[in-house]
Amino acid sequence: MTDFWLDFPGIPEDLSHVQKAVQEALGYDHALIQNALGDLFEGDGKLLRPGLLLIASRFGKRDEKKTIALAAALEMLHVATLIHDDIVDDSPLRRGLPAVHSRYGKKDAVLMGDFLLSRCFILTASYTSPANATLLAKAISVICAMEIEQDLDRFTASPSIRRYLRKIMGKTAVLFSLACHAGSSEAKVPLRTSERLRRAGYDLGMAFQIIDDILDYESTESLVRKPVGNDLKAGLATLPLLCALRNDDGKLAEMVNPTNFRHADVPILINTVIERNGIQDARTYAHRYTNRALAEIAALPPGTPRELMHLLATRLLDRTY
Amino acid sequence: MTDFWLDFPGIPEDLSHVQKAVQEALGYDHALIQNALGDLFEGDGKLLRPGLLLIASRFGKRDEKKTIALAAALEMLHVATLIHDDIVDDSPLRRGLPAVHSRYGKKDAVLMGDFLLSRCFILTASYTSPANATLLAKAISVICAMEIEQDLDRFTASPSIRRYLRKIMGKTAVLFSLACHAGSSEAKVPLRTSERLRRAGYDLGMAFQIIDDILDYESTESLVRKPVGNDLKAGLATLPLLCALRNDDGKLAEMVNPTNFRHADVPILINTVIERNGIQDARTYAHRYTNRALAEIAALPPGTPRELMHLLATRLLDRTY
Repeated sequence: MTDFWLDFPGIPEDLSHVQKAVQEALGYDHALIQNALGDLFEGDGKLLRPGLLLIASRFGKRDEKKTIALAAALEMLHVATLIHDDIVDDSPLRRGLPAVHSRYGKKDAVLMGDFLLSRCFILTASYTSPANATLLAKAISVICAMEIEQDLDRFTASPSIRRYLRKIMGKTAVLFSLACHAGSSEAKVPLRTSERLRRAGYDLGMAFQIIDDILDYESTESLVRKPVGNDLKAGLATLPLLCALRNDDGKLAEMVNPTNFRHADVPILINTVIERNGIQDARTYAHRYTNRALAEIAALPPGTPRELMHLLATRLLDRTY
Repeated sequence: MTDFWLDFPGIPEDLSHVQKAVQEALGYDHALIQNALGDLFEGDGKLLRPGLLLIASRFGKRDEKKTIALAAALEMLHVATLIHDDIVDDSPLRRGLPAVHSRYGKKDAVLMGDFLLSRCFILTASYTSPANATLLAKAISVICAMEIEQDLDRFTASPSIRRYLRKIMGKTAVLFSLACHAGSSEAKVPLRTSERLRRAGYDLGMAFQIIDDILDYESTESLVRKPVGNDLKAGLATLPLLCALRNDDGKLAEMVNPTNFRHADVPILINTVIERNGIQDARTYAHRYTNRALAEIAALPPGTPRELMHLLATRLLDRTY
């Protein structure tokens, strides 16, 4: 776990229980798999989704064991979707390290993702309410359905900001929103507050993913880490580029045309995106979502949990890592 | 649905409800996916696993709605594993038709499998007991874990009958056994009977898969349908070949050496397997498992459900399709 949560009282302790719960849920019968997957939960992940779930649960009366199990299940679900996403997008790296399919082959990566999903469902079926078990399963089906539909649509739709926003909704906002919804409903938070948390989670997720995509353009490391060329070829342009294209005189469009694109052009591309205000405009989007989240948070019942939600929202927007 | 179940009183009616439950569980929000996946449940599938579950539930007092939901979830789980298996094994065909990944690409096939799994869990979380929801999730994790472990092991282990039996245990026997276990426990069948059914299901699954692999050698159609060469290259030799290799003077071993193997040799290979008693010996294995199943079935409480189990066991052994 990183230092991200250090000044959130109680959260680092809870998260270390979540990490233990994940290790237990992976089971000790399968040492090889336990090793292969265990790494994924011990790296520099920020455990944002379980952290958010834990904060949301504090708005009510939580049952500690159930809440920790639910947070662990959510992180497992998240990692399972990452493993399958990296296969699907053919991304060789994840957080700067080889993706699971790069290390173990696509075959085992598909199976390891399935294994994780099934372990996640064992956890929810065993510890949480059937309603929350259903919520988690529904989140997966929404995430998959959105990806499939966008994909089946790929020959007709051109990359656009709307398409991008839909994609990150399915990828990130659904899980952030689920974290708030599941955490608060397991703790029997009144519906009005729970719904407000759910909406705040959604907006935070959108802002978070946009910032993530901006950081990819800003960090020089990203030149090495991110297969930008592949993203473009697969029509996976992110918001900074899409914003820059709106301010373009045709030069950038020419440059990113998949048939012309060469990986060696990435540094020039990034400069052009910055020149065309791509990053600045993308930041405006992130601010808008954060402000919407902050408005929801301001209307939550006052107290420490609300302060933590506020702190999280501003921290996610201001982060540089 | 095929005519397979025609003389099992009540089962065809139940199975048509199962098919409806599957369609409902796929949801109507996602027309594209509904279409793509709906096909898979309407083909010439025998619905063996849900059929077995329905018979097992008749040993107790079943709640119709729950039992139908559970049977539907089991079939969805089965189809999800088939979709992912075909990606993993690079099989272009499934039941003589293009596999999902051949039709929609690997990317959407991974996602469609995940979508199906999640829909399966929504169904179990909503309708069945948490114990049965857990059973289904555990079955997936066992299936995946066994495949992964065999795969991580592939550089050390040579193809062998023991390895083959382990593989089909993970692939087929686990689900047959689960069908009996889940169906009977949802219907509150006493533990002793339920355990007996579970063991019978396991043995039936083993026999079924062996027969399936024998039929692949016997049917001339299989020359077209099955990518035998790929199977051999991936170390996926099935029982007839493995038995024949035991009676071999070296000629067959030479022929199936992956570096020598040419697809055009398939007809000669099949003849050699038959000459070396591969099919006959494999049938002996299938008989042994069927006999074990029949012994368990004979010890079940008498009545129509037991007769149906007996009929199913003999029919699975004698089938030629």
